[in-house]
Amino acid sequence: MKTRFTEAFGIEHPIIQGGMQWVGRAELIAAVANAGALGCLTAFTQPTPEDLLKEINKVKDMTDKPFAVNFTILPTLKPVPYQEYMDAIIQSGVKIIETAGNNPKVFLPKIKEAGIKVIHKCTSVRHAVSAQKAGVDAISIDGFECAGHPGEDDTPGLILIPRAADQLDIPIIASGGFADGRGLAAAVALGADGINMGTRFMATKEAPIHQSIKEKILGANELQTSLIFRTLRNTSRMFTNEVSLKVIEMEAEGKSIEEIGPVASGQRGRLVYENGDENAGVWSAGMCIGLIDDIPSVDELVSRIVNEAEDVIKERLGAMVA
Amino acid sequence: MKTRFTEAFGIEHPIIQGGMQWVGRAELIAAVANAGALGCLTAFTQPTPEDLLKEINKVKDMTDKPFAVNFTILPTLKPVPYQEYMDAIIQSGVKIIETAGNNPKVFLPKIKEAGIKVIHKCTSVRHAVSAQKAGVDAISIDGFECAGHPGEDDTPGLILIPRAADQLDIPIIASGGFADGRGLAAAVALGADGINMGTRFMATKEAPIHQSIKEKILGANELQTSLIFRTLRNTSRMFTNEVSLKVIEMEAEGKSIEEIGPVASGQRGRLVYENGDENAGVWSAGMCIGLIDDIPSVDELVSRIVNEAEDVIKERLGAMVA
Repeated sequence: MKTRFTEAFGIEHPIIQGGMQWVGRAELIAAVANAGALGCLTAFTQPTPEDLLKEINKVKDMTDKPFAVNFTILPTLKPVPYQEYMDAIIQSGVKIIETAGNNPKVFLPKIKEAGIKVIHKCTSVRHAVSAQKAGVDAISIDGFECAGHPGEDDTPGLILIPRAADQLDIPIIASGGFADGRGLAAAVALGADGINMGTRFMATKEAPIHQSIKEKILGANELQTSLIFRTLRNTSRMFTNEVSLKVIEMEAEGKSIEEIGPVASGQRGRLVYENGDENAGVWSAGMCIGLIDDIPSVDELVSRIVNEAEDVIKERLGAMVA
Repeated sequence: MKTRFTEAFGIEHPIIQGGMQWVGRAELIAAVANAGALGCLTAFTQPTPEDLLKEINKVKDMTDKPFAVNFTILPTLKPVPYQEYMDAIIQSGVKIIETAGNNPKVFLPKIKEAGIKVIHKCTSVRHAVSAQKAGVDAISIDGFECAGHPGEDDTPGLILIPRAADQLDIPIIASGGFADGRGLAAAVALGADGINMGTRFMATKEAPIHQSIKEKILGANELQTSLIFRTLRNTSRMFTNEVSLKVIEMEAEGKSIEEIGPVASGQRGRLVYENGDENAGVWSAGMCIGLIDDIPSVDELVSRIVNEAEDVIKERLGAMVA
């Protein structure tokens, strides 16, 4: 499939596996690359810049195709050595970076000098316009449906994608709420040049998370996600479990971040994925969890989405305008 | 354009102008019918069943094409003579009814006996399945983006439409967040057989609302709607004005419905539309308000949407699969 995104980034299919903390490891990213889509390693899943460099090299051993590193700048309780991680990415020879969270402006000069392309993920049209102005090469526009951080505007993709398309000149990736070929066709109809998926890639054979969490995803419907940290203006969409419900309760009681933080510790999200205990901590899940009902290989998934989008366009939409 | 909806309901284009309290009057409904789409008179905009019958006859004088009557069953402070209004609709000879709010089950035997088709609008897949089981002929599935009552699930159309398509056999109308041909193509890609629009039809020449309110819609972006009555579990998406902000403040202060009700009185919504004072009361607006930037005639609007959807399908999506 050919879009402005596939052309500009040299990727076979207009599908990105977006950055997912703890999940974005070499085995998944290489599988996505080999399937002709774009996978994103998550930089801060690795404990040090040196470990990140090793993980990047591990991907390179598993695929010759392009892949990206996700670099998410968010409020954290302890400081993160951002520049050191960025230096490792640049040094690694990776050709694409997915930035998210804060505007990546301060990092762009070094990135551009190294000839690396940047996809910036954000949740509002005003931030997208500002990132385009700063010089990024594509925007991943992330709707209210998404896992992780939807921002505070609560604007779903049906509005956000065409609004972004009206305001931007660079390629647009639609993110949040996508899990199948119907969604890919819809995203492109709305003005996007591809889709970004997270939760859908978690339920694949190659995703490095415990089988029982993959099965939890299959069994869930679209009502089983919850927004935490709303009162802190750092909203996160998480799977509805004992811990996310506890956090929401603590927020309603007016508890402080110092009290809530340890309960919602991201480190325990890692334990969820490693041990398969869904209540070990909070863990991200998008609303498209209601559209997921199998655990295919990454290659099967990507082929199916591409074929389904093609069918939808040629058959279903074709019949409407025949 | 041909879909299961246009075929089953005998409408030229897969576009519905959904029920809008105070706005769904004869002049708009007739203009929509004459443009080849399906307009819905709102039953309870008329003070009595006799007035409704007169309004229906007024539409019949203005068009020979099919139109519908919207019949919305909601919690109200004072009782509404629902059966009397329904008897008037049935007696009028109207061939299509749009129901919304509660399940229309109790009214269906008489409706069916009269050979009238029913489109039931709801905001969740479980209610859609239940309405299909009760015997309605189509489902209008209304996402979080919509004006008026989005329900309490906060599920946007990108999720709700494909989920509904997977669960239903009858035609599906995608509602909430639609304002242009990109949206129509996207809705059908996701599994719908047409779109429902409200806010977009408010900004047309024929909409019977004050010009200054139409201009307010043009000037607004997607961030200028607010959810009121959330704490009452009767959530409504309204234009963000002094009154909706006041209501939200009163809810946060834990004020009772007896105190909030008079401030948010729906009667003053009527004054907004009649007098053009945007702060006369609360008034419904969907998030697609950010996608609206002109005031065409209804006929221009419908033609433009149909043509844009056709272009998107043939050119934009066609190029992707070429």
